[in-house]
Amino acid sequence: MPQPVGPGATAPPPAAPAAPEAVLAALERTTDQIIGREDLLDRLREGRPLRIKFGVDLTAPDLHLGHAVNLWMMRVLQDQGHTVIFLLGDTTSRIGDPTGRSTTRPVLTEEQIRENAESFLAQVTRVLRSEPELLRIRRNSEWFDEMGVPGLLRELSLVTHAHLVSRDMFRARLAAGSEIAMHELIYPVLQGFDSVALDSDLTIVGTDQLFNEAMGRELQVKHGQRPQTVITSTVTPGLDGGPKQSKSLGNYVPLCASPGEKFGRLMTLQDELVGTWARVYTDLPLAQCAELGRRADAGGAAARDAKLDLAEAVVRRHDGADAARHSREEFVRVFSAGERPTDMTPLPLEPGTRTALDLVLAARPELSRSAARRLLSGGAVTLEDSRLREAEEEVAVRDGQVVKAGRRRWFRIEMP
Amino acid sequence: MPQPVGPGATAPPPAAPAAPEAVLAALERTTDQIIGREDLLDRLREGRPLRIKFGVDLTAPDLHLGHAVNLWMMRVLQDQGHTVIFLLGDTTSRIGDPTGRSTTRPVLTEEQIRENAESFLAQVTRVLRSEPELLRIRRNSEWFDEMGVPGLLRELSLVTHAHLVSRDMFRARLAAGSEIAMHELIYPVLQGFDSVALDSDLTIVGTDQLFNEAMGRELQVKHGQRPQTVITSTVTPGLDGGPKQSKSLGNYVPLCASPGEKFGRLMTLQDELVGTWARVYTDLPLAQCAELGRRADAGGAAARDAKLDLAEAVVRRHDGADAARHSREEFVRVFSAGERPTDMTPLPLEPGTRTALDLVLAARPELSRSAARRLLSGGAVTLEDSRLREAEEEVAVRDGQVVKAGRRRWFRIEMP
Repeated sequence: MPQPVGPGATAPPPAAPAAPEAVLAALERTTDQIIGREDLLDRLREGRPLRIKFGVDLTAPDLHLGHAVNLWMMRVLQDQGHTVIFLLGDTTSRIGDPTGRSTTRPVLTEEQIRENAESFLAQVTRVLRSEPELLRIRRNSEWFDEMGVPGLLRELSLVTHAHLVSRDMFRARLAAGSEIAMHELIYPVLQGFDSVALDSDLTIVGTDQLFNEAMGRELQVKHGQRPQTVITSTVTPGLDGGPKQSKSLGNYVPLCASPGEKFGRLMTLQDELVGTWARVYTDLPLAQCAELGRRADAGGAAARDAKLDLAEAVVRRHDGADAARHSREEFVRVFSAGERPTDMTPLPLEPGTRTALDLVLAARPELSRSAARRLLSGGAVTLEDSRLREAEEEVAVRDGQVVKAGRRRWFRIEMP
Repeated sequence: MPQPVGPGATAPPPAAPAAPEAVLAALERTTDQIIGREDLLDRLREGRPLRIKFGVDLTAPDLHLGHAVNLWMMRVLQDQGHTVIFLLGDTTSRIGDPTGRSTTRPVLTEEQIRENAESFLAQVTRVLRSEPELLRIRRNSEWFDEMGVPGLLRELSLVTHAHLVSRDMFRARLAAGSEIAMHELIYPVLQGFDSVALDSDLTIVGTDQLFNEAMGRELQVKHGQRPQTVITSTVTPGLDGGPKQSKSLGNYVPLCASPGEKFGRLMTLQDELVGTWARVYTDLPLAQCAELGRRADAGGAAARDAKLDLAEAVVRRHDGADAARHSREEFVRVFSAGERPTDMTPLPLEPGTRTALDLVLAARPELSRSAARRLLSGGAVTLEDSRLREAEEEVAVRDGQVVKAGRRRWFRIEMP
């Protein structure tokens, strides 16, 4: 598989070696829980490249700023010479981790797995370095193909039923009377075995993966290995203050968005979240993050300026200083002048009439129907400066017309 | 693997084809439950050789009259030209079905599997015919080696957690707070898949296997197959009236015992069980079985004569008419005359003293220590006509001495 070259690959050479305590402190800035903290310190002191397991399932390769938190932590370690192992769960993707999902994920074909892997890799190398010694690509079919049924039975013999059903997500499903298919129940054993196969030193995951990775620690011990350290990263509320960034709620900043779109989305952040987002999503000094938070709490122009600083810092981190400065200038120009932006997103449409709801969904396919209805009823949708409020209202559109669907989300209609 | 030639292999050629209803009636004489009865009738009418799955785990190849019930049912079908597939669970034996056991069975080596398989086959061909078209030998590693982890995950995806834990044995263990290892929990799926791999028409099993075989039916349907018929066979109480024949209780008739030993053990049967045992363990007409039961209920000499008839019928079925007649004559001679039998079991011992308990266990290693103590305290143990009652009593033994340990269990000491 080709290794796409993202910004990460062209990043400056590794920073000067930092003291283990300093590396750990950098990680802890965005750490929620850490299991095996002393172990990690010991390992950092060993001076060898650590193996950082970065397991991905290949069903939803659409990353946002929340995912980037883990990537930036791994980037800190890469800059110290440690190796991220980008592990394609091609065997386990054929099952799907049932985490929080009511239905089993669709089974992927080899072709889909390959495509998703490439898309995923292109996104993560926007943050991660891709020198071969710092980023390795593996597939868990390497060991599961070899393991066979008897081997899997041996692994399963190391784990009890009681332990697996203690997973909060399984407990919730059992309590709700939902069914758990057996391939789902054993998923943590498979994910855990990945750590054994890689002799993983560390993995940095979302809280929902903690159970599975703790299973990895257990299996590692049973195989005579030192158990990996598990770090769960900090989760922030979404742009709108909702529990977290989520594609279906539209309250997120996509990693692949243009600098201008990232900037515009960041400017929709709730004032009271500016300090938190600065701490979690930028590399600004902590004192400065706190200062941004205080300015945002003051509201009005101070809050707007704090948010401009935050947005610039986030975009600078991901897309560089020039892009960040240009995005800021463009935003200020449009915002201050009430002008339309110069670089609107093209919106290809067939001629004809459609409902206002369909127009919004054409522009913002990531929204649910109910979220689109709320945009309309909230007055956030305009067509050539006339506001659309009724979801079922029929509207006629022409080539070149401008649609605004949400705060600072501009589209220009393009007809064939 | 060589096919040992037992009495079954030298049996007369198949009986004249019987009507499907007659075949079913013969099976139902020793049937407890039958799932898919009409299906079986339909299949018997098709006129093709049916595939009868006879799955064995290879950890305890020591069969008794209770196991032979299933073998005789299969023999009825072989005599009609149907094929018994003797399926060595070499993959699943590496797990062990946890049925009714508090601990996981030991893992078997390839060598042990081979030895146990040969021992098992030698025993079952005392009843089953062994012509190649009537008895095939397969191993479930044939399909499990090929299946791999992804294949097993697919099978597991067809089964829910709720279904598996509904198995009464698992429920009991969960209720008792016992642990269930995950390889045990999925055992029914593996056993069930054997039916898919063989496209099994029928299987005849003990009640404790009903859940697993019903799982086989379910998986067959999910694979587009017609589900196998499952017959569970009748279980009788043991010789002493205990719940069933069991090696550790010593209340059983081993399939491999000599005709004389079978006969002697059968004569220890509780009077009230004679009718039941006749029905389940002989091929005497049912009216005659009922008659034997009535005579046994009368007690005294009538009961003894009924039991002689029963024992002769059982031994005749397994070892032929001559052996049965000779065993009866020998038994009557010893019993009437109070004489010692002429054919005592040799008991090789090193010179020296040992406790009475150790002496009993040397003669009857199949007994538990507590069962051996009960024999002693019950006055059933003699050494050269002097009774031994105290388990810890030190006894000196000499070459040629006669030990009696239990009713009609005679041994002659042989020293090097």
